[in-house]
Amino acid sequence: MNLILIERGELADGRVRLTGGRASHIRGVLRTPTGGTVRLGVIDGPTGEGTVLSCDATGVVLDCRLDGPVPLRPRVDLLLAVPRPKVLNRLWAQLAAIGVGRIMLTNAEKVERMYFDTHVLGEAHRRTRLIEGLAQAKDTRVPEVTVHRRFKVLIEDELDALCGEAARVVADASFGDQPSAAIPTGSGRVVVAVGPEGGWTPYELDLLTGHGFRGFGLGPRTLRADTACVAVLTLVHERLACAGVPAGNSPSRVDS
Amino acid sequence: MNLILIERGELADGRVRLTGGRASHIRGVLRTPTGGTVRLGVIDGPTGEGTVLSCDATGVVLDCRLDGPVPLRPRVDLLLAVPRPKVLNRLWAQLAAIGVGRIMLTNAEKVERMYFDTHVLGEAHRRTRLIEGLAQAKDTRVPEVTVHRRFKVLIEDELDALCGEAARVVADASFGDQPSAAIPTGSGRVVVAVGPEGGWTPYELDLLTGHGFRGFGLGPRTLRADTACVAVLTLVHERLACAGVPAGNSPSRVDS
Repeated sequence: MNLILIERGELADGRVRLTGGRASHIRGVLRTPTGGTVRLGVIDGPTGEGTVLSCDATGVVLDCRLDGPVPLRPRVDLLLAVPRPKVLNRLWAQLAAIGVGRIMLTNAEKVERMYFDTHVLGEAHRRTRLIEGLAQAKDTRVPEVTVHRRFKVLIEDELDALCGEAARVVADASFGDQPSAAIPTGSGRVVVAVGPEGGWTPYELDLLTGHGFRGFGLGPRTLRADTACVAVLTLVHERLACAGVPAGNSPSRVDS
Repeated sequence: MNLILIERGELADGRVRLTGGRASHIRGVLRTPTGGTVRLGVIDGPTGEGTVLSCDATGVVLDCRLDGPVPLRPRVDLLLAVPRPKVLNRLWAQLAAIGVGRIMLTNAEKVERMYFDTHVLGEAHRRTRLIEGLAQAKDTRVPEVTVHRRFKVLIEDELDALCGEAARVVADASFGDQPSAAIPTGSGRVVVAVGPEGGWTPYELDLLTGHGFRGFGLGPRTLRADTACVAVLTLVHERLACAGVPAGNSPSRVDS
């Protein structure tokens, strides 16, 4: 927890009373004394500092100064074929930590129907895990998540409205191009599509490339969906950073 | 399991009898009929094909033709401060899948002593998990793993013998250089150092840079150790592949 994140509704008269995991973290890991400060952020809001007013077994009270910037939304969006629940559960925090503006979870030929029925996809569960990743990366902007049961409808009818302005790339073993040839640099947004563990079908790849997705490969090694996501997002962020514009802002450059 | 991996000792007269997870995979996931073939590899040896001779509840017997190449050792080595056992456990298979030739696990100021006492570091456990990653990535070469309790001794006295010929880079938030400025392209080897979750200390960074490690940053977002490892190894592989030489061979370019 490199940033203590609070909901705006928790603030009262510029103060917040923390219990549970955040209080334990301040007491047991940061060991911030009374009068000391911790890095603080409001979910989807500004960053700042909290001064410890009191700290005991019942909780931690912070006096909040939230005059820092609201982090910019990361410039990378992810279009991801719904992975196995166990993998998806591991992914939420990692995706939020690496930095994505939007996550579009989609059906695909090789996605099993039961993957849609898991509690891991549920809004409360995923929000908790996403916020965990934001606290790790010192960001406050919760990625927007949408779930799409019809891949064709998503690509043909919905994608333009969701991320129309973004350059489109797709990672798949069938493409020979290296990432650097396909992923743009510059100051725009990029949406990257990552397929199911069994890969996209030729029909799905045709639909993607027919709607402006440029393909690239990750080499001959087949990666698990979560490893592939981290790898692909890393490459897109690196390409965007090449142009000298940060691919995703963070509320603070002070590292813990 | 994109490659069925066997130990050389399991081969008898060109045949192998599989039970357990590998047999279940052939029966339940691949559903290879009698007479059909599966991709096969000998651990630290060649790749090839196995023809299903019999397949029932007691096991699967394969006739093995192992005339494929022995995969090249991946050209990337990892020097990693021992992470929390839970994180390390998740990492083994991912590291083997992405491709590393050697993993040097080291102590550091911010590594807790108890991290060395976990069964997750044990040879039998880690070998099982590494082979899982190789089967995913269709490789046969098990990364060499060494554990170093004295960081200074490792860097000053042991590193030259372990990977003397490799270019040295270190990822740390304190460095402003982008990965592309620090990580070489070309046909050589690279060893990349990844610190503990709390970061390397200034003393440790001085020791590393004093022994030829060139630093780069990953941007302002602080990543968990396992996410950081995948990100850093992806960037090194991508840079090495830029020179047109694959950063780590694989036994097969046919993807499943």
